[in-house]
Amino acid sequence: MRDARALALAQAVSATLLERLRAAVGASQVLTGGDLSAWELDWRKRWRGKALAVVRPGSADEVAAVVRVCAAHGTPIVPQGGNTGLVGGGVPDTSGTQVLLSLTRLNRIRALDRANLALVAEAGCVLQTVQQAAADAGLLFPLSLAAEGSCTIGGNLATNAGGTQVLRYGNARALCLGLEAVTASGDIWHGLSGLRKDNTGYDLRDLFIGSEGTLGIITAATLALHARPAATMTALAACATIDDAVTLLGRAQQHLGAGLTGFEAMNAFSLSLVARHMPQIQQPLPPSPWTVLLELSDNEGEAHARERFEGVLGAALEHGVIGDAAIAESVAQSRTMWHLRESIPLAQAEEGLNIKHDIALPVSRLAAFCAQAEAALSRAAPGMRLVNFGHLGDGNLHFNVQAPEGADAAAFLREREHEINAIVYGAVAAHGGSVSAEHGIGALKRDELPHYKDATALALMRAVKHALDPQGLLNPDRVLRTSA
Amino acid sequence: MRDARALALAQAVSATLLERLRAAVGASQVLTGGDLSAWELDWRKRWRGKALAVVRPGSADEVAAVVRVCAAHGTPIVPQGGNTGLVGGGVPDTSGTQVLLSLTRLNRIRALDRANLALVAEAGCVLQTVQQAAADAGLLFPLSLAAEGSCTIGGNLATNAGGTQVLRYGNARALCLGLEAVTASGDIWHGLSGLRKDNTGYDLRDLFIGSEGTLGIITAATLALHARPAATMTALAACATIDDAVTLLGRAQQHLGAGLTGFEAMNAFSLSLVARHMPQIQQPLPPSPWTVLLELSDNEGEAHARERFEGVLGAALEHGVIGDAAIAESVAQSRTMWHLRESIPLAQAEEGLNIKHDIALPVSRLAAFCAQAEAALSRAAPGMRLVNFGHLGDGNLHFNVQAPEGADAAAFLREREHEINAIVYGAVAAHGGSVSAEHGIGALKRDELPHYKDATALALMRAVKHALDPQGLLNPDRVLRTSA
Repeated sequence: MRDARALALAQAVSATLLERLRAAVGASQVLTGGDLSAWELDWRKRWRGKALAVVRPGSADEVAAVVRVCAAHGTPIVPQGGNTGLVGGGVPDTSGTQVLLSLTRLNRIRALDRANLALVAEAGCVLQTVQQAAADAGLLFPLSLAAEGSCTIGGNLATNAGGTQVLRYGNARALCLGLEAVTASGDIWHGLSGLRKDNTGYDLRDLFIGSEGTLGIITAATLALHARPAATMTALAACATIDDAVTLLGRAQQHLGAGLTGFEAMNAFSLSLVARHMPQIQQPLPPSPWTVLLELSDNEGEAHARERFEGVLGAALEHGVIGDAAIAESVAQSRTMWHLRESIPLAQAEEGLNIKHDIALPVSRLAAFCAQAEAALSRAAPGMRLVNFGHLGDGNLHFNVQAPEGADAAAFLREREHEINAIVYGAVAAHGGSVSAEHGIGALKRDELPHYKDATALALMRAVKHALDPQGLLNPDRVLRTSA
Repeated sequence: MRDARALALAQAVSATLLERLRAAVGASQVLTGGDLSAWELDWRKRWRGKALAVVRPGSADEVAAVVRVCAAHGTPIVPQGGNTGLVGGGVPDTSGTQVLLSLTRLNRIRALDRANLALVAEAGCVLQTVQQAAADAGLLFPLSLAAEGSCTIGGNLATNAGGTQVLRYGNARALCLGLEAVTASGDIWHGLSGLRKDNTGYDLRDLFIGSEGTLGIITAATLALHARPAATMTALAACATIDDAVTLLGRAQQHLGAGLTGFEAMNAFSLSLVARHMPQIQQPLPPSPWTVLLELSDNEGEAHARERFEGVLGAALEHGVIGDAAIAESVAQSRTMWHLRESIPLAQAEEGLNIKHDIALPVSRLAAFCAQAEAALSRAAPGMRLVNFGHLGDGNLHFNVQAPEGADAAAFLREREHEINAIVYGAVAAHGGSVSAEHGIGALKRDELPHYKDATALALMRAVKHALDPQGLLNPDRVLRTSA
């Protein structure tokens, strides 16, 4: 009897909530029935939730109105951009009590200021649209990552996305000059500064960036643009050890300075998976323990870029730092080299599920970390195969553990994930690294975080969360556990 | 009678406090008598306070112990580095109730990691010492500003210092990879990460940086180093308008990319003051409305740098963007050009007190701002003279209003400051600018801030302050008013 009454009451309350949400954004933008898997299921199909409703505001004012309605009802909100996250941070839980707030209708480029090297984009703009807007003005928005055709700039900022150009241009955080965001109380912070210097108080911008929607909802951002280089050229180099790759990095930084815009490393097994599953993709160098992709952005042109590459790589060859090298002859060849690097995630998927780690270390510790982790993994899971690749210039490896040849990959993931994670993250911690370099915490790593994060830092995070979202309604149980 | 009793009680309490402080850091490091003006008086002699005691801990643990003692007694703490601040943020108030916590004994370079391009410096390290440690390792720590011989890295981070290399390398914030800091409760946050990527939670690092000691006390930092350029070269260029200077900036960014490491502008009156008061300083170009100093850092060498400068400046001459140019012939000539720029602050001081503004604007708005502010100032204070110079590449002007020729400068400052500030800051706000680009808020601009800062941002700042320093003991009444 009591249950039936409680249910009836809950239904009545939620009916009022839905009515008020419809009043805020229009009835057609509050979805409660039909197939909502575009919002409730993440793209890797690892997280499926059930939303109370999918709400699609069309402006910052409407976002604020939605937040105020939810706050009045004590209803949790899960903000979502392009739904391309990797840590379960943007899909609702299974309770059916959370409002999924989709930002994709906020998709205007509001302004572009060529002289100030800045543009203002709404949160729902697809990253590629932002890149294109910059390119149309003869400028560069350098943030670049695999999901760029569908991820949104709001999500990129909420997760402080990384990608392939961090070495030179920094993470998403470094490319943001200002924010417009809605607070937990439904107020709009108008902070779309286009300034390079502004020391008027606490750095709320960087606090919101990377907070994964748990402190406020980003509705627009002023983004920093850069001059387009005259030429961009890539090269591949073969290294016998990761230590040699780190030495090559130092030499390239010394001689190319900010011209070095990419430095990716791929171990032999990564490239062997590409050869196995995508034999049509050209591999310019014969197999070696490590293959490095270098990208040089030059302000003078192709001939100058080539000359500089030849200088650095020639000296590295002479000193035995690398065993072989290939410099792209054309833009098309440069694209082929990047395509090789970017095919690794798909190639590993073809090989079967694996246990993924997005980790970062000081580059000086990479070799020691890899040796320690690899030895421990080989002892714990003889025959395991390491898909080890990533943004070596930033110390960021995607350090993925694949089941032994012929083993059941799904079973390996299911049965060994916890143990393998403990080995990898233990080695990461021992070498001063991070258990999440660029993907964030979300739901996936929330319960790991307290094991690897400084206790004082965690206490500060909790205090900030409680101060800015006292009801705990913004993306609850992501990053920090907020429920009991 | 009651007053005498209260006084006796206060004295007894403070005697206990002092005893406990002496136990924490050693009796010789708790100063209560003699001439304490090195700590109680700021270097520009505009702020004089009275400390309950000057306490000089020698380690992060001792800083934490001091904070715990003060927290137990409800005693406010004013952290101080090199005491070179410009906004009254590092000297105690006149009440005699605040502990002045000097960080200068924490002055070790703890580690330098060449491969990782990073070093760990304690808060009390003088900036020049940090620069030198990097140089000794063949690397560059690019933060550079006038006070570098006496300011400390802890103060640089607490105020997010700017300086002359921001255009390429960013503010102090962009040069910090990790922090060690003491919280208001006296816990130590061990966050000396040497990572370029770390998305494990909220960005506490950037929150502490620029918070001027009001959220926690920085005790050490991991700093990002850069490769040293092969050659650094400067040039001067004459522009008829600030619009032309902005056009030149765009051309230089397009053609020099990250090689452009400095872009400073000086109006004619600024340089005329140098000519008047420092006639020995060489001025390579004849007077023009604006003189721009460009710095180019080149990875190949002097000849290449010169060639690139000639390309950019030659084209700018041809297109009428500049009227004249001089490229330094040597390192010595480059230094002379910088010396000219750096002499402006002293030259204006020779001319008498003036009303200073450290402002930033989107570079696209600089011309409109200057026109509006200059017209309004001329109406309000006919004959006023504008010492207008600064880091134009960052949109940062030191926009200082000098009394009319022959007028009483001290009286002008005293009588007109409030009105002049309102005019300048009003124009800054109208053009989307900042009333503090690189100096911070401190006590000087605390009461101005609410007029120019977004109300929601201010409310968020207050919430963060209350969450991290609930007793309000860390640098009270700086940045935000915390007392009633």
